[in-house]
Amino acid sequence: MTNTIHKTTFSVPIEKRYFEDYIAGSVHEFGCIMIKEDEIIAFADRFDPQVFHTNPDAAKDTVYGGLIASGWHTAALMMRLCVDHYLSHVASLGSPGVEELRWLKPVCPGDEISIRVTVLATKPGGSGPCSGRTRC
Amino acid sequence: MTNTIHKTTFSVPIEKRYFEDYIAGSVHEFGCIMIKEDEIIAFADRFDPQVFHTNPDAAKDTVYGGLIASGWHTAALMMRLCVDHYLSHVASLGSPGVEELRWLKPVCPGDEISIRVTVLATKPGGSGPCSGRTRC
Repeated sequence: MTNTIHKTTFSVPIEKRYFEDYIAGSVHEFGCIMIKEDEIIAFADRFDPQVFHTNPDAAKDTVYGGLIASGWHTAALMMRLCVDHYLSHVASLGSPGVEELRWLKPVCPGDEISIRVTVLATKPGGSGPCSGRTRC
Repeated sequence: MTNTIHKTTFSVPIEKRYFEDYIAGSVHEFGCIMIKEDEIIAFADRFDPQVFHTNPDAAKDTVYGGLIASGWHTAALMMRLCVDHYLSHVASLGSPGVEELRWLKPVCPGDEISIRVTVLATKPGGSGPCSGRTRC
């Protein structure tokens, strides 16, 4: 963590946050995580061993002009920011999936990642009388 | 790697595979990777530190009844299978994103992951005269 962004309207801390605290239309911003070259390479060696993710020298000769992070690495770091700052630490039950995932720009060593989450909709129901789903 | 599935109609090896070798309608199956408990915990400690991904004992008291892999971990292993078996090693230029990602069932320690890829469509064009995009 190299920097901290907190723009949120949550009225309760993450340890006491329940379904009713996620308000449709609310917007929350959190960050940052700096992504470092050695972590980019380590992640890609295991999960996405394409040359523009694993080899800084060879990556110079690719369309990206240098090393870039695997898109799955940036997605995973986005998840870390969600767990640290957004998802309830006492009531989150996981997610059924993602509607759309777009990698708009390459993420390079030294870049900082932050997130903006908008609660699009909430729907009561699920595994208990006080539970529900949020779409964000 | 604990097992090997290869059901593919590619006529050329991955080191010689170009855009024209990805035929719309073709189906390819590859695998498997076994997912182990220590890797589930290590991934989640960094990227998705929710108790059902990080603590085997505490996970027993959750809705999942035990440790499960982060969905981002299973997605990353899917990518590894794609890089090892599906994506050209000489012509792949990365991806703009994912249209839909669904985590249909929990993935537990010892489970084996394999993939089925269908080439839905191909579209010439892009960064060079012989390049194009495939949607799969």
